[in-house]
Amino acid sequence: MAKVTHEKEITALLVIDPYNDFIAEGGKLWERVKGVAEANECVPHMVQVLHAARKAQLRVFYALHRRYRPGDYETWQYIAPIQKAAWVHKTFENGTWGGEIRREFEPQPGDIVAQEHWCSSGFANTDLDVQLKKHGIHKLIVIGLIAHTCVEATVRYAAELGYEVTVVRDATADYSDEEMHAALDVNLPNYASAIVITNEVLSSLSAF
Amino acid sequence: MAKVTHEKEITALLVIDPYNDFIAEGGKLWERVKGVAEANECVPHMVQVLHAARKAQLRVFYALHRRYRPGDYETWQYIAPIQKAAWVHKTFENGTWGGEIRREFEPQPGDIVAQEHWCSSGFANTDLDVQLKKHGIHKLIVIGLIAHTCVEATVRYAAELGYEVTVVRDATADYSDEEMHAALDVNLPNYASAIVITNEVLSSLSAF
Amino acid sequence: MAKVTHEKEITALLVIDPYNDFIAEGGKLWERVKGVAEANECVPHMVQVLHAARKAQLRVFYALHRRYRPGDYETWQYIAPIQKAAWVHKTFENGTWGGEIRREFEPQPGDIVAQEHWCSSGFANTDLDVQLKKHGIHKLIVIGLIAHTCVEATVRYAAELGYEVTVVRDATADYSDEEMHAALDVNLPNYASAIVITNEVLSSLSAF
Amino acid sequence: MAKVTHEKEITALLVIDPYNDFIAEGGKLWERVKGVAEANECVPHMVQVLHAARKAQLRVFYALHRRYRPGDYETWQYIAPIQKAAWVHKTFENGTWGGEIRREFEPQPGDIVAQEHWCSSGFANTDLDVQLKKHGIHKLIVIGLIAHTCVEATVRYAAELGYEVTVVRDATADYSDEEMHAALDVNLPNYASAIVITNEVLSSLSAF
Repeated sequence: MAKVTHEKEITALLVIDPYNDFIAEGGKLWERVKGVAEANECVPHMVQVLHAARKAQLRVFYALHRRYRPGDYETWQYIAPIQKAAWVHKTFENGTWGGEIRREFEPQPGDIVAQEHWCSSGFANTDLDVQLKKHGIHKLIVIGLIAHTCVEATVRYAAELGYEVTVVRDATADYSDEEMHAALDVNLPNYASAIVITNEVLSSLSAF
Repeated sequence: MAKVTHEKEITALLVIDPYNDFIAEGGKLWERVKGVAEANECVPHMVQVLHAARKAQLRVFYALHRRYRPGDYETWQYIAPIQKAAWVHKTFENGTWGGEIRREFEPQPGDIVAQEHWCSSGFANTDLDVQLKKHGIHKLIVIGLIAHTCVEATVRYAAELGYEVTVVRDATADYSDEEMHAALDVNLPNYASAIVITNEVLSSLSAF
Repeated sequence: MAKVTHEKEITALLVIDPYNDFIAEGGKLWERVKGVAEANECVPHMVQVLHAARKAQLRVFYALHRRYRPGDYETWQYIAPIQKAAWVHKTFENGTWGGEIRREFEPQPGDIVAQEHWCSSGFANTDLDVQLKKHGIHKLIVIGLIAHTCVEATVRYAAELGYEVTVVRDATADYSDEEMHAALDVNLPNYASAIVITNEVLSSLSAF
Repeated sequence: MAKVTHEKEITALLVIDPYNDFIAEGGKLWERVKGVAEANECVPHMVQVLHAARKAQLRVFYALHRRYRPGDYETWQYIAPIQKAAWVHKTFENGTWGGEIRREFEPQPGDIVAQEHWCSSGFANTDLDVQLKKHGIHKLIVIGLIAHTCVEATVRYAAELGYEVTVVRDATADYSDEEMHAALDVNLPNYASAIVITNEVLSSLSAF
C-alpha cells in the first residue's frame, strides 16, 4: 500500500485562454495586448513552457472563457461589467477563428479541457476542480491571458480551493503595464506560492 | 424601486436527461426504464408539463449528463461506480442518436441548457446554479430521469443550495419500482417541498 | 522530487454527526434510531472503526450538522422539509447536551472539524472539501448517522466532487430498515466504491 | 401569485472583516491600515452606510475571515502566502480583542453572520451564498477591509456566482494607495456594477 509519487504526478500545467482573439495577429484584442505581450515575449514563452511541461509528462489542463454564442446574455437579469463587454464585443465568438485556440496551443490527446466559464475564473461554475481532483493534482503552473482578469481570478480561486500555484510572469500579458503590475506585483503574491520567469520554470521542469 | 413579481418569474422548469438513450424506443437504457415509464406514462406527462410550463412562460432549464466521449475516463485515478458504468456502456454517446435529446424535448430559443455534468447532480461542477441566479429563479419544478440517480441527486443539491423544489412523480421513471420508491417516498420528501402528480402541476401552472 | 506515499496518507476517516441527540440514551432522536442501531451494533462499530483509524494514523475529519440556534430559520424565504424539521425539533441545540458529540467520538488534537452544514451534505456550503485538499486526501471511509439523509448526502457529494468512498454499513443507522435499505442497497452502490462491514475495514486498516 | 417586490428586498449590505485588528486603535494591522483609512474616513463612512442600510431595512450580512486558532495550519500540506501570514501573525486571534468585531459593527438580531472563511473570499467554502439565496438577495452593497484582498476577492466571487455588486470606495481601506488603486481602479470595475462614494449610497438608500 505504498507507492512512489513524483512531483510531476501532483503538478499540472494550466493554460488560460490561448485564443486567437487574444494572442494572434488579427485577433479582436490582439492590438490591446500586443504591447505588453511582445515586450515580455509572452507567446514564445507560453510555447516553451507548454513544450517543457509535455516533455516532463505533466498533465495539461485548459481553462477557457465562454465562446460567445447568440442568446448568451439577453435574458440575464444581473450582469457584471466584464460580461457586458464580452456581450458587446462577442469575444471568442463560437465558430469563428477568433474563438479558436491558437495553433501552437491546440489541446492534445490526454489533455483536459475544462468546461467554458462565464466570467473570469476557470474554476467558477465549471468542472476544473473535479477534473484536477480526478487526476490527483495539487499544484498548478499557470500561463496564459489576461493577467489581471482571468489569470488573477483563476489563481485566486485556486488558492481558495486549496491548490498551490506557480505563475509564470513572462508567459502572461495584459492591456497595459499598470494592469500587469496590479496582477503580478500587488495581488498575486498573496495567492501564488511562486511567481517565476520562464527560464526558472524550464529548469525546474527539466529536473522533474 | 418597487416592482410586481409573479410567482412564474422566480419559478423554472428543470428538465433532466430527456435523452433518447433513456426514453426513446431503441435507446440503450429504454428496455430497463420501459416498465416503470409506461406504467406511469412518464413521457406523455413530461410533454404535458413542458408544454404547460412554456404556455405559462416559465423559463425552461436543462440539466444533462455528460455525453460519452472517448478519453473521458481513461486518465482518472478515482472513479465512482456510476461513472464506471457510463464508461462501459458509453451512455449518451456524443454524436450518436442515443445522446440526442428526444425530439419533443428539444430546447427552444430562450431555454437554458446547463453544462453537462459528470456524475448525477445537474448542479455539481456545472453552471446550473449561476444560470438560475442570473434569471432570478428560486423555485424549481423537476421532471425527467432517472428518479433515484440524477433526479434525486439534483433535487438534493437544489435543496442544499437554497432552492425550493417541486417534483412531479409521474413525470419521472426508474429501472424498478423499488428504486422509484426509494427516491420518491423515502428520500425526496426530505428535500422537495412538494411531490405532486402531473395534473396538479398543470392546474397550478394554468393559474400562474 | 520523488516521495513514497502510503495509502493512509491519501485516505481519511469521515465521522458524520455523532451527536448525543442521535446516538446516546436520552437523545432527541435516539428512540427512533435505537431499533436499527442496536440491531447492527452501530455505536460499538463506530468506536472500533474510529480507534482503528487512529491507530493506523489516518487523519480523522468530522462533518457536523448545524447545531440549532434561535433565529436560524425565521428569516428564510425558502426552506426544505428537513430544515423545517430541524427548526421544529431544535435538533442538536447549541449549548445543550444533545448538541454535543457523544463522549467516545470527541475530536482529538489533529482532527479536522469542518464547519457545520445546513441541510444534509457535509460538503455543501462548508470547508470540508478544502480541508480534505489541504491534507492531500482523495479517499474517504465514512461512518455515522443518518444513513439515508446526512450519510447518503455526504457520500453523493463526495462522489460528485471526485473522492473515492468506502461506507461501513454496520457503522451507520437509520430510523427504519426501509430507509437503511434505500440508502445502503439502492442508492449508495452507485456512489460508494465499496460498502463494507466493520470487520473488513478493521482488517484493511491494520494492513495500512 | 403576484407580489410587490422592492429593491431593498433583493439587496443586502455585506460587511467584510470589521475586526478590531484591522480598524481599531491597537489592532495588529491598524498601523498599516491607518494611513489610507484616516485619509478617506473609512470607519466613519462604514458606520454611516451601516446605519443607513439598517434604517432602509436592508438585510445585513457579515463575511468574516477565520479567527486564528492554534492548530489551524500545522497539518496543511498546501498553503497560500496570505494564509502563511495569517498563521505567523495570528491575525484575528480567536478569543482575543483583536478577533472581535469593532463595537459599532456588532451584528444585531436578524443579521446573518456567514461561516468564517480561510483565505480571502467570503464566499469560498462558506455558507454565504446559500444564506443570500435563502433571503432572496441578488444585489450586494459592499463595505469593509482590505480592499485588494478580502474585498476584491469577495466581489470577484460575487460576480462569478451571479450577484450584482456595488462597492463603496471610501468605506474600504488598504495598506497603501497603490493597493487601493489596484483594487478599486484597476480590477473591481470589471466585476462591480458600481463603485460609489458613501454620499451616493446614502442618498440611494434613503430612496429605497
